[in-house]
Amino acid sequence: MSTICLPDAGASELLGELPAGIETVVWDGSGPPPPGSEHVGLLVAPFAPSALPAKALLHLPALRVIQLLSAGAEPWLGRVPDGVVLCNARGAHGGSTAELALAGLFSLLKQLPTFGQAQRAHDWARAETDGLAGKRVLILGAGDIGARIAAVSEILGAQVTFVGRRARPGVRGPAELPELLARHDVVIVALPHTPETVNLVDAAFLAAMPDGAILVNIARGPIVDTDALVAELMAGRLHAFLDVTEPEPLPTDHPLWDAPNLVLTPHVGGATYGWQSRAYQLVRDQVVRFHQGQPLENVVSEGY
Amino acid sequence: MSTICLPDAGASELLGELPAGIETVVWDGSGPPPPGSEHVGLLVAPFAPSALPAKALLHLPALRVIQLLSAGAEPWLGRVPDGVVLCNARGAHGGSTAELALAGLFSLLKQLPTFGQAQRAHDWARAETDGLAGKRVLILGAGDIGARIAAVSEILGAQVTFVGRRARPGVRGPAELPELLARHDVVIVALPHTPETVNLVDAAFLAAMPDGAILVNIARGPIVDTDALVAELMAGRLHAFLDVTEPEPLPTDHPLWDAPNLVLTPHVGGATYGWQSRAYQLVRDQVVRFHQGQPLENVVSEGY
Repeated sequence: MSTICLPDAGASELLGELPAGIETVVWDGSGPPPPGSEHVGLLVAPFAPSALPAKALLHLPALRVIQLLSAGAEPWLGRVPDGVVLCNARGAHGGSTAELALAGLFSLLKQLPTFGQAQRAHDWARAETDGLAGKRVLILGAGDIGARIAAVSEILGAQVTFVGRRARPGVRGPAELPELLARHDVVIVALPHTPETVNLVDAAFLAAMPDGAILVNIARGPIVDTDALVAELMAGRLHAFLDVTEPEPLPTDHPLWDAPNLVLTPHVGGATYGWQSRAYQLVRDQVVRFHQGQPLENVVSEGY
Repeated sequence: MSTICLPDAGASELLGELPAGIETVVWDGSGPPPPGSEHVGLLVAPFAPSALPAKALLHLPALRVIQLLSAGAEPWLGRVPDGVVLCNARGAHGGSTAELALAGLFSLLKQLPTFGQAQRAHDWARAETDGLAGKRVLILGAGDIGARIAAVSEILGAQVTFVGRRARPGVRGPAELPELLARHDVVIVALPHTPETVNLVDAAFLAAMPDGAILVNIARGPIVDTDALVAELMAGRLHAFLDVTEPEPLPTDHPLWDAPNLVLTPHVGGATYGWQSRAYQLVRDQVVRFHQGQPLENVVSEGY
């Protein structure tokens, strides 16, 4: 017998019928814990981490796994009890976020904002545009999102280099970044938000990128030094697509809004129709693995 | 000894050094034919077909091959002398055109025009967007462009069906179109412009597409009935990305400009930086094959 805790009643429906021997309780962490919560071994956390009060976990003495619905795990830093495994929903959002990264990148390369302006003005204004063929693309983060962006870039004729937290076959280490930045045309930030990645893309990082290079950030705002990026954009030296900013939401009077050569979306990378059913399909597989004592997938870390 | 004719002096530079035994002459078809033109076996036609007077070919009695720099061959219909082989530059533009198709498609799915409007208004307006995951994509044309769009769509979780001029393994025939249209979310037109494809996408074709479906045309304008498409767009029933229109350029007062849910670019699919060097790399390989008597690639037809 395994007991799992779901954040809301809709989750049961999205999970579908579970194998015999798996009990579910529904609790969002507010109010008194429901009957059976003392047996909860796996908790599916609400999508918004702030929705679950920190002390709620104290009511789940049998807890062994916290399963997130998001790819990012940074809000859980320091909140996971000893001996509890934290798992994310890597894969549920990867396709969507990769697609947004490509949408923004292609929009810049193909000058869609400029053609949109011409369309509004009824102006058939032809121009040569750019493309990925022959471009060198540097992808920071060799996870699911980075891998999909790489595969697409290669189909369109680009050469891809990965940089990860540690050098390994096919992935370069962070120490090589300054040298790599100087010889890549596109830099895509697809890293998790951790203490090591905050402000990784600072003034020196941006200065190392060649003139006319493109920065794409679909990860988290704090990884990029916003002021340093604004300065490079205002100088007309770099181009950028940002789905995330620091701060968020971006204040109305922030200079980033009007920076040239910038495509900006309001943190919508994972927010696509159907994300919940994709996430719960992944959760369902994890719940079955948990129940059967098989190794879990998407483990972020133990005692994160 | 082989003699080839190039449209301008710049072409020699782009071709680079050729194997021994290949002579080149430069002639754009205007003025008297240069010395050696009586030996020309392969003609590299100017990019704009109208730049070469029809009667120029009469001065090339040894002509056996016309090599185009474009993917589209339709302006050469009826202009190729008997016994002369017409070859296009398939592959030189495919990546670029596929990329533009994806740029426009992603722009619609991810609502980039709406987010662009919000950006200009300094408005952090989040919204759920759409994506290719789970979408059914119908690609008309199983050539290089279609194949690249298919590969990318599959990486992002879509299911792809090809329709070609003739049914064959992996490609459905035109007779199945009405039934196929009804169960696909995205239709991409990547067909050559021929008498058979003119107005293929007519009112009945569009009516067979489901509500909210997306039409992408990066092929040629006359393949789509513009008035029928305008009607569907105005009704809010379909969405579209067009890089080509009929007529072209689109007149200032044409209703298409202001149609809702339309992303429009002014026929820039092949016009990317570097297209000439990519095209001439392909021409160079063809010239070597011609000289060595090997089978040619990219043959459109003999006596087209």
